[in-house]
Amino acid sequence: MIIQLQKNISSADIKIIYQTLEAQKYSVTKVNTQFENYLICIGKVDIDIRNIGHLKGIKDIHRVSDSYKLVSRKWKTDYTKIDLGNNIIIGNGTPTMMAGPCSIESEEQVSKIVEHLVKNNIHIMRGGVFKPRSSPYAFRGLGIDGLKMMHQQCKKNNIKIITEVMQVSQIHEMIDYVDIFQVGARNSQNYNLLDALGEIDKPVLIKRGVSGTIEELLHSAEYIFSKGNERLMICERGIRTFETIYRNTFDINAIQVLKDKSHLPVIADPSHGIGIREYVPKIALASLFAGADGVIYEVHEKPEEAYSDGQQTLNFMESENLIAKINTVKELL
Amino acid sequence: MIIQLQKNISSADIKIIYQTLEAQKYSVTKVNTQFENYLICIGKVDIDIRNIGHLKGIKDIHRVSDSYKLVSRKWKTDYTKIDLGNNIIIGNGTPTMMAGPCSIESEEQVSKIVEHLVKNNIHIMRGGVFKPRSSPYAFRGLGIDGLKMMHQQCKKNNIKIITEVMQVSQIHEMIDYVDIFQVGARNSQNYNLLDALGEIDKPVLIKRGVSGTIEELLHSAEYIFSKGNERLMICERGIRTFETIYRNTFDINAIQVLKDKSHLPVIADPSHGIGIREYVPKIALASLFAGADGVIYEVHEKPEEAYSDGQQTLNFMESENLIAKINTVKELL
Amino acid sequence: MIIQLQKNISSADIKIIYQTLEAQKYSVTKVNTQFENYLICIGKVDIDIRNIGHLKGIKDIHRVSDSYKLVSRKWKTDYTKIDLGNNIIIGNGTPTMMAGPCSIESEEQVSKIVEHLVKNNIHIMRGGVFKPRSSPYAFRGLGIDGLKMMHQQCKKNNIKIITEVMQVSQIHEMIDYVDIFQVGARNSQNYNLLDALGEIDKPVLIKRGVSGTIEELLHSAEYIFSKGNERLMICERGIRTFETIYRNTFDINAIQVLKDKSHLPVIADPSHGIGIREYVPKIALASLFAGADGVIYEVHEKPEEAYSDGQQTLNFMESENLIAKINTVKELL
Amino acid sequence: MIIQLQKNISSADIKIIYQTLEAQKYSVTKVNTQFENYLICIGKVDIDIRNIGHLKGIKDIHRVSDSYKLVSRKWKTDYTKIDLGNNIIIGNGTPTMMAGPCSIESEEQVSKIVEHLVKNNIHIMRGGVFKPRSSPYAFRGLGIDGLKMMHQQCKKNNIKIITEVMQVSQIHEMIDYVDIFQVGARNSQNYNLLDALGEIDKPVLIKRGVSGTIEELLHSAEYIFSKGNERLMICERGIRTFETIYRNTFDINAIQVLKDKSHLPVIADPSHGIGIREYVPKIALASLFAGADGVIYEVHEKPEEAYSDGQQTLNFMESENLIAKINTVKELL
Repeated sequence: MIIQLQKNISSADIKIIYQTLEAQKYSVTKVNTQFENYLICIGKVDIDIRNIGHLKGIKDIHRVSDSYKLVSRKWKTDYTKIDLGNNIIIGNGTPTMMAGPCSIESEEQVSKIVEHLVKNNIHIMRGGVFKPRSSPYAFRGLGIDGLKMMHQQCKKNNIKIITEVMQVSQIHEMIDYVDIFQVGARNSQNYNLLDALGEIDKPVLIKRGVSGTIEELLHSAEYIFSKGNERLMICERGIRTFETIYRNTFDINAIQVLKDKSHLPVIADPSHGIGIREYVPKIALASLFAGADGVIYEVHEKPEEAYSDGQQTLNFMESENLIAKINTVKELL
Repeated sequence: MIIQLQKNISSADIKIIYQTLEAQKYSVTKVNTQFENYLICIGKVDIDIRNIGHLKGIKDIHRVSDSYKLVSRKWKTDYTKIDLGNNIIIGNGTPTMMAGPCSIESEEQVSKIVEHLVKNNIHIMRGGVFKPRSSPYAFRGLGIDGLKMMHQQCKKNNIKIITEVMQVSQIHEMIDYVDIFQVGARNSQNYNLLDALGEIDKPVLIKRGVSGTIEELLHSAEYIFSKGNERLMICERGIRTFETIYRNTFDINAIQVLKDKSHLPVIADPSHGIGIREYVPKIALASLFAGADGVIYEVHEKPEEAYSDGQQTLNFMESENLIAKINTVKELL
Repeated sequence: MIIQLQKNISSADIKIIYQTLEAQKYSVTKVNTQFENYLICIGKVDIDIRNIGHLKGIKDIHRVSDSYKLVSRKWKTDYTKIDLGNNIIIGNGTPTMMAGPCSIESEEQVSKIVEHLVKNNIHIMRGGVFKPRSSPYAFRGLGIDGLKMMHQQCKKNNIKIITEVMQVSQIHEMIDYVDIFQVGARNSQNYNLLDALGEIDKPVLIKRGVSGTIEELLHSAEYIFSKGNERLMICERGIRTFETIYRNTFDINAIQVLKDKSHLPVIADPSHGIGIREYVPKIALASLFAGADGVIYEVHEKPEEAYSDGQQTLNFMESENLIAKINTVKELL
Repeated sequence: MIIQLQKNISSADIKIIYQTLEAQKYSVTKVNTQFENYLICIGKVDIDIRNIGHLKGIKDIHRVSDSYKLVSRKWKTDYTKIDLGNNIIIGNGTPTMMAGPCSIESEEQVSKIVEHLVKNNIHIMRGGVFKPRSSPYAFRGLGIDGLKMMHQQCKKNNIKIITEVMQVSQIHEMIDYVDIFQVGARNSQNYNLLDALGEIDKPVLIKRGVSGTIEELLHSAEYIFSKGNERLMICERGIRTFETIYRNTFDINAIQVLKDKSHLPVIADPSHGIGIREYVPKIALASLFAGADGVIYEVHEKPEEAYSDGQQTLNFMESENLIAKINTVKELL
């Protein structure tokens, strides 16, 4: 059960609500987000909502049978929109495109890509500076300096930045240079990181774990929301199956199911979803027709020279063609 | 290596080709299909094609590095078209729609569905009469009488029939009433059945096994082709993964990869691919944008009363809406 | 619900039972096996067993909540034993060993292996003559002549034969030369084959499908039992997962779970379960400690020259060591 | 390539080695552990080891073709032993048992379990105080105070402690109360945590990720070793597959394969590996016969009242029986 509190509720009235719930052996978690104050109430007996709804200071009250609560569509059927400023809104019905290299490599590389984004009317740039790599001996990213450099160039061009954060201690140093924090697939159940991202007021995109279920993904989102951050989106990026021809199996089923179970925007990552450059555009297109709110993909001036993920990264021409195709079908979506 | 023979090649000339290949320790399999005569030649040493190409009676010669040969696109880059007559051609660039109930149940049921197909300009009806069921106590289909009844109604309305064949001994009794034989997911590696379907001149659709790899699927197709039947298509119908919310995980990646590896038409089965009625249309649409040549889906006047698979079967209105949507996007595909 | 009938029940009494059940809207399937006559009764309402138990001709009556019935341990808590004659009994508490080559290749090969079996006190020989192969161009086995040759040598040495049957039409020609029919993983849901094997009086070993669930495996066994053949065993042979280092992932969990859910003997196949020769003995041993009633494994005089599966086949010394180790631990099992 | 340096190597000699390697375009990572100093050298050209081996200050030099280096058995064929003091050595040939509750709950609970461990001669206690839970509303453990309390009781009884660490900032506060840090399945690729655990001198047990491959697990271990900590062990705890009857599928194949690829001790976790109490002992036994160096399992006085994982936790009698059985087979292992 989710109780939305009135903003100006008195502490005496809160106390009465708590007492009423605890009398029913309900555990209560208080959640204050950027926008609202909630009580998440979990118990075993069925409570007649009317016996609580009349209490002072309650704005609204919802039954939610899912084990995740705040991210469920059972209480909030309107889809969440995330406003990044400059009229860039995720989840408003037009597909949001996010593009950029796997890793930030150099000033020159960033400037070429920014130019490409501007030309193609893409408003959000992806680019990793902290890179989770299977091998400890591989390139692990340029770190915070790479982010600052990226930020400088993006800012001049009104481009927003999405980049991966790998641990709690990085949040503070990154926050001024980031528009969307990305939680990578390997950290999808790193609960301390999720907790910490719930305590800031910046949008977060959580990727599904490599073998994460839909339920687990929504619970991970619940971690963030329940610590106070409503500006969330979730990302399907392919799952691990027995098929070895592609890096991952893009789970197109997940997109509509997520849209049905949760009010959060759903972003598709076809680059990781199939992992083979030539097939990325078709998966991107398919995911939009399956209901995705946007697409995040990898692009690089010379994919074959990229520090990482070159085999799944589009070059500028391929990227341009994809954007053109998406523009053609935009009204049909 | 695939050698295409001239139709009128003399047996003496064939003998010379065999001798030349066997001198190189190549094993040779002769394949005579409806359309062409081939030799499939497998060996360990590299042969200079020019030393063979000049032999009498050879029409063409191709190197194929894949372990499947005849179904590979490495020797036949043109996509295969399957002509069912009455101007119904699979693989000609327009999406082929196949629709109908999971099981044939009654004359009335069939007549309602045929009417629905005619109205929506769908030219191929699916409908099972031999049903593979997990439990031996479940409804196993109306059998050959159901097929005859279905055939009678379809014929009057110029509708082609696709239906599942489960074992070799059924082929003979079914063949006059069937336009496309379907091999189900559970029989995807039933090699005796595949062999037997290679010996007839009727189109065959092979479904991917529940955990079949792309390679296994193409090898299954090779079984049929190598016994003499070129009129083949393959079907992605969802694979088994760890995710339990949906019946199967529709593998959208497979579609374009199959189109790239093989010249055979690729059909999508969104009904089994997700297994939940309300999501079928979006997966259908997505699969066409991913490159599928057609869609096979389940439809029933009253899905909730269907003998089987009701939960993933569209009703007539949902089906009509899907067809309408596909018509809207047809030119974009 | 399973009703065991008295052998001498009159047709009038049967009729009364049917009428009583059908009055409750139960569907009834009559099953006559080598040993007993049963009625399998499936319905939606709960019947008070006492209202049926008093009817004439009923020997016993059991509630079975599983959707498989006859193979469930819910009605038959005693484990099934399968007597092959010559004092060879599967499921009697001592591990049953079955060994032999992947494929029968030649008289000499068989004679060497038979000698090895005799020397090591192994009473059941495996060996394929009809081979399901991924590629249509691969060696498909020596066929019925290979079986006859194998039979001749085994008979002289009091060795029983287990070999794979791939299709219904083979059963008749094989039956005189086979002691246990094996259903391979790819045919685990080939229901026509299962039906046909239910109609004969020879033991059958069903392998789990490559991605078959426990439930599916037990339903496949139910197919055979419900057609009349109680002499059944089931085999865990590894499942398909994301891990690619080994051919399959031997599912050690399945063994005890199967023993718990079903009264049928459970045989472990470590050769396919891991697919790497050097690891086969440890998996064999582990599976016995996990509760398996026996082990089937591949052995060949010169595995590196075997026509198929050489990489997972033990040589004679490795096989001997395995048998010795198992003898050491026998009393502990 | 791994170069072991002499302890007293001069910085001038190190410089020469670096220069020689960099001349061949090798990247060099210096690793100083508790025991040795290494250079990990990765490059594309093949170097003749003899041209380097003669350089001053080099103790030994090894080619390692695996992409993980220090944890590979290709350079260190002797298995690693981990000495915890008080004669408790992991990997010395006798199975190491670790047992305890999923979560530390109370002083009384701990004292009961400690008593059980002492009685059964188990020297290592497991018990979570920082609990990764799918839901943010679930019990997350008693935290550092729980650990201190546990430590007090264990110390008095000469019992070592293994407990999970979830994030970098916890290491410092935990280190005085912990004998083995456990990295949970969800953090198996939390590289910042692995880095940090490489910088301390306490043994670490890394669990395989829920869908982690063998290669990924060994790379995770390499993270820790390459930061300086050699006192490592790895843990098979079941993987995620399509089978839903059990929580995870214990991958018995992994044990011997890990022992073959790496010199690190391998611990089996049957509690998570199957997730059903009654089957835990058999999987424990099987894993030892498959080659595991030890077993970690969950035990609680009253599993049905445990705060978490009760369904897979043994009670005292079951635990006692398991220990008794293992003692019986000890010499056979």
